[in-house]
Formats: sequence, structure tokens, C-alpha cells
Amino acid sequence: MKNDKILLDHGSGGKMANHLIASMMLPAFDNPILSQMNDGAILNAQAGRLAFSTDTYVVDPLFFPGGNIGDLAVNGTVNDVAMCGAVPRYLSVGLIIEEGFSVSDLEKILAAMGAAARSAGVQIVTGDTKVVPKGTADKIFINTAGIGVIPDGVDIAGDNARPGDQILLSGTIADHGITILNLREGLAADAPIKSDSAALNHMVHRLLAAGIDIHVLRDPTRGGVATTLNEIAGQSQVGITLLEETIPVKKPVAGICELLGLDPLYVANEGKLLAFVPEAHAQKALSEMQNDPLGKDACIIGKVTADRPGTVIMKTPIGGERIIDMLTGEQLPRIC
Amino acid sequence: MKNDKILLDHGSGGKMANHLIASMMLPAFDNPILSQMNDGAILNAQAGRLAFSTDTYVVDPLFFPGGNIGDLAVNGTVNDVAMCGAVPRYLSVGLIIEEGFSVSDLEKILAAMGAAARSAGVQIVTGDTKVVPKGTADKIFINTAGIGVIPDGVDIAGDNARPGDQILLSGTIADHGITILNLREGLAADAPIKSDSAALNHMVHRLLAAGIDIHVLRDPTRGGVATTLNEIAGQSQVGITLLEETIPVKKPVAGICELLGLDPLYVANEGKLLAFVPEAHAQKALSEMQNDPLGKDACIIGKVTADRPGTVIMKTPIGGERIIDMLTGEQLPRIC
Repeated sequence: MKNDKILLDHGSGGKMANHLIASMMLPAFDNPILSQMNDGAILNAQAGRLAFSTDTYVVDPLFFPGGNIGDLAVNGTVNDVAMCGAVPRYLSVGLIIEEGFSVSDLEKILAAMGAAARSAGVQIVTGDTKVVPKGTADKIFINTAGIGVIPDGVDIAGDNARPGDQILLSGTIADHGITILNLREGLAADAPIKSDSAALNHMVHRLLAAGIDIHVLRDPTRGGVATTLNEIAGQSQVGITLLEETIPVKKPVAGICELLGLDPLYVANEGKLLAFVPEAHAQKALSEMQNDPLGKDACIIGKVTADRPGTVIMKTPIGGERIIDMLTGEQLPRIC
Repeated sequence: MKNDKILLDHGSGGKMANHLIASMMLPAFDNPILSQMNDGAILNAQAGRLAFSTDTYVVDPLFFPGGNIGDLAVNGTVNDVAMCGAVPRYLSVGLIIEEGFSVSDLEKILAAMGAAARSAGVQIVTGDTKVVPKGTADKIFINTAGIGVIPDGVDIAGDNARPGDQILLSGTIADHGITILNLREGLAADAPIKSDSAALNHMVHRLLAAGIDIHVLRDPTRGGVATTLNEIAGQSQVGITLLEETIPVKKPVAGICELLGLDPLYVANEGKLLAFVPEAHAQKALSEMQNDPLGKDACIIGKVTADRPGTVIMKTPIGGERIIDMLTGEQLPRIC
């Protein structure tokens, strides 16, 4: 492109918009459905159940250790679809770009989206670009929506937790949120931390292929593990008991949490899942997770009880108990 | 809600975010799929073809004669799905809200989205809300993605125009864009103009039910009729000839276009469609359109030729000809 800045014309729907699509979007997202360039993508579907989800990404800064807003936007929606037990297939992308944004940064972001989509096995099939005048948006915001196919026999939902279910966590917590905060606050420039941004659909597929009867799956993003477990306890009207010493947090992440006075249980993750499975399946599910490239630190962190429905209780190593509430009042905007 | 302003906490994923969803989103968009509150919506699909599309809305001002950003966001994506010949069924909604935005304005926008969805016969089944710090977005931006079902036998696409096809336009042009510009520039406060924002899916259904063999359907939004016809001429590798005197423009809209030096052919519409049909079906298609509540001003504006593939030619009443190019260089940001 002649210009190294995005101009309002790039979002006009006219010649420059078409040029942007042809020169940058189609190569980055290359697939035959997108390149038909109709108002919508045309998809072939089998009869059955589909999962449909959307998320908007406004993370600041755009580039961070472990990823950028582009792969985050792909992985996040892939994960939301996968958490329904679905095989993610198709994504839409809606871009809001601030006038003057760097074309080379846009190229990096689109390339990361394309790579993340290929890695997750999904196709970006339709999209839209708006350019807004300088000062009316901050650099770039990305919405993705995703469609996946739910295999027959899979029945995963937030209201499916049952007393006795074991709760598995696929790895360390708080990596994404702390990486972003650390960068933004300029705290520990050389801390060995990075975002866990990753697509979890292959791990979900592995669990289902092994015959694990998953009751609930959820990725603990904004609000962290604590908020996600509270949502599930409420939806299923069950109690949840966690064992504090089992919840893995990387040392440098824990250190920054202490420095900032943050509880890692409330900090966003972008490549972790919580799975609720019947006790009889728990050990097999754990070893399947641990065999997955993204699950080596997987562990069982607690269980579902019939007591105190709607409540999440943390048992401490010295035998104490405290109630873990939803996130309230903390302000970590633009973490994802 | 206690506060009359949206706070960062409303986008935190925590308690206030859940309260916002429960108190405002679920009532506005009421349907059983959304209220399951999983990471994604679970939909039942028949075997067949689906249409999938997305659009982001950044219109400024948010409220205008004929609608607001909320119904515009629903109608726009409903139309993109309908332009594939599909029956729109499900929408996702992604909100980016600026900290401090008025809760009562948000309520009006959500109510308009709910009403537009009911009127179009679609369900808003999944969504996401981000709140960004004051000054990092301008008030509210809305992304919608939509899924529709393409009936068997329907084959509508941008590369399907054939020489001899007649080109139908469903009504007057430039109403939306000129309404927004007029408001923004404070030109003619009492001009009797309003946005044409409307869902066109019922009109498409009427045409298909009447057995019209539609080759191409497209709604001429950003870039206007001129840009849309150029896209189709390019995709189908055909020529297009328009008859200038047949293209309807409301008088006050034409007046403001003149004042601003704008060609209405390039101005955005939000409730109009272009249909390409074989000559033998043209009169029937026209009368079906004119019988539709949104089509009383429908007309035939031109035809497809084998000459000059990729080119759109305007024939003037006095026998002249000029080439109608795509939109280039005009800057009408935030028109939709």
C-alpha cells in the first residue's frame, strides 16, 4: 500500500476499502468462502446443533508477550464456541480502526489472526471494516463471532454441574491479565511472564474423543476463575468447594499479583478451561488434559457439592474456609 | 439501576456486568436461547446452506430521524443475510460502550434492537459487552453477526448477473446518508427527510415465494448504488447500463445533495435493495416489490449487458453516456 497509515477512505465501502480487502484481508485469511465476497458467507451445514458466540476485543496494549489483539480475538471466540462442546468451524471479523492507525501494525494483527485461525482449524469467512476519525476510537477494536458444530451426544452447559462432579483446571491462572497489567503499568519489564492466549478446541476434542462425560466447560476469562465458578454455581444451583493449595499460579505472576494487591482467582485467563466431570471420569480426564500441549499443568481444584447452592467456598491449607464471591468493583479495563 | 452512567465495572465480567445483562439485555432481547447464558448460544439447524454475515455500526449521531444505532445494527445484518437469499434467524450482538455513557440512552438503543429483531423475525441469542475508559471510544459502537437459512433451490450471488437481466431498485436512494449528514452538519433542521433503515428480509421472501428467479441481490449501503453496481459488474464480468431518469430520489434529499455537492448514487442506503432478475420475471418482480410495504417506489433502473464487462454506464435523458465508477476519495465517515 502506498500509505503507511489507515485513512477514513479505507472504511468507505469504495475503492480503497476494496483495495484493503483484496491486498490485506484475503491473503491473510485465505479461503474459498471468504473470497466469494458476497454480503454474507455461504456455509454448508449438517442437521444438528450449532454453537454461536461473539466477543469484542479492546485490549491495550495491542501487542504483548504471548500474542496480540488479533490472535486473542480468534482464540477467544474459538474458545467460547469450544466451551459449548462444539467443533469451531467459521468466524466473522468486524474491525473498528482509528484513522491514522499503522498499516504495518494492521498487517501484523491480520497475519496473527490468520495464523491463529489455521492453528485452531477454523475459517474466517466474512468480515467488515469501519474506520472512524482520529480520537473517536483507540487504535483498533476487533469483534469476532464464531459458529461451531456440536457432536451428537454432547450435552455441555452451565446448568449441568452435579454434586460429586470433580472440577479440573487446565493450567496456571492469571497469566494473561497479569502480563497485560505488567506491561501497562511498566512494573517488571524483564519478568518471565506471557499471555496464555491459545485455542482450547483441540483439548476439548481430546477429552470428548476419550469418552469423558463433560458436564460443564467454561474458560475463565474476564472476572477469572472465581467469577466463572460463581456463574456455574448459580446456573446449576450447586455448591462448589475449592482446595486453595491445588490452584497453580506461576511464581512471577503470583509476585506481581501480590505487588498489585490482586487475587489471581479474579484475573483473566485466555487459554485455560474449567471442566466439570463425574468423579469416575476425573482421573482419566486429568491425564488426557496433561497429555495435551496446553494442559501439562492441569489439576483437580475442587468438587461440586449439594450444600450451599450458588456458593463457592475456598478451603485453605490450614483448614479454614472462605466464601469466594464474584468479581465486584475491580477495574481492569481493556484486559481483553 | 442506581447509576445513570455506564461504569467500567459494567464491562468487567463480574457482578455489575451480570446485573447489566439481567436487568437490561435479557428483557430487551427476551428469548429462551439467550437466557440460557452459556458462552455460546446453542441452535438447532437443518441440513442445508447457511448464510453468515457481520457488520459494525459506528454511526454518529446515535439517534436520527427514522431510527437509532440499535435498529440500524439489527436491520443492517438482517439485510446482509437476506441478500444471500437466506431467511435470517439468529443474531449476536457485541457492544463497545464508552465509560460514562448514559444508561437511559443505552436502554433506548437496546429496546430499539429488540423491536427491530422482533419485526424482522430474528432472535438475538448471544452477546458481549465491553466498557472502555472515557475518551477511548465515542459513546457506543455495535457489532452484529447474523445467521440465516438459505432455502433449497435459491442461488443468489454477486457473480450471477447475466446479460439481459433487468435491475430493480426497491425505492428512493440516499435517504439514510443524507439524513445523517443533514443532522451532523446542522443544515436543514426541518427538512422532511428520514433514514430508510428497515429490514428487507420480508420483501426478499415475497419475491422468492412468487417464484422470481433472482440472480443477484445486494443492499446498496456504504458507497451507495454506484459502488454496489460496480462490485456486481466486476464479480459477474458483465456491463451494466442505467437510465438516469428512472432512479428515484426524494426532492428534499436531492436538494441537500445539491447543496453538498454529493451525487446521491454514492450515498448510503439502509433499507433498499437491488435485485437482478431475468427479463421474463422483471414485471412480476416489480409488482411484487411495489406491493411490499417497503417497496412502493420500486422501479426498474437498468439492465445487464455483455458489452464492457466490469463497467457501469449511465444513460442520461438527453442521450449522453457517462461511466459510473466506484466511490473514490469521498469522506463520509460514521454514516452507519
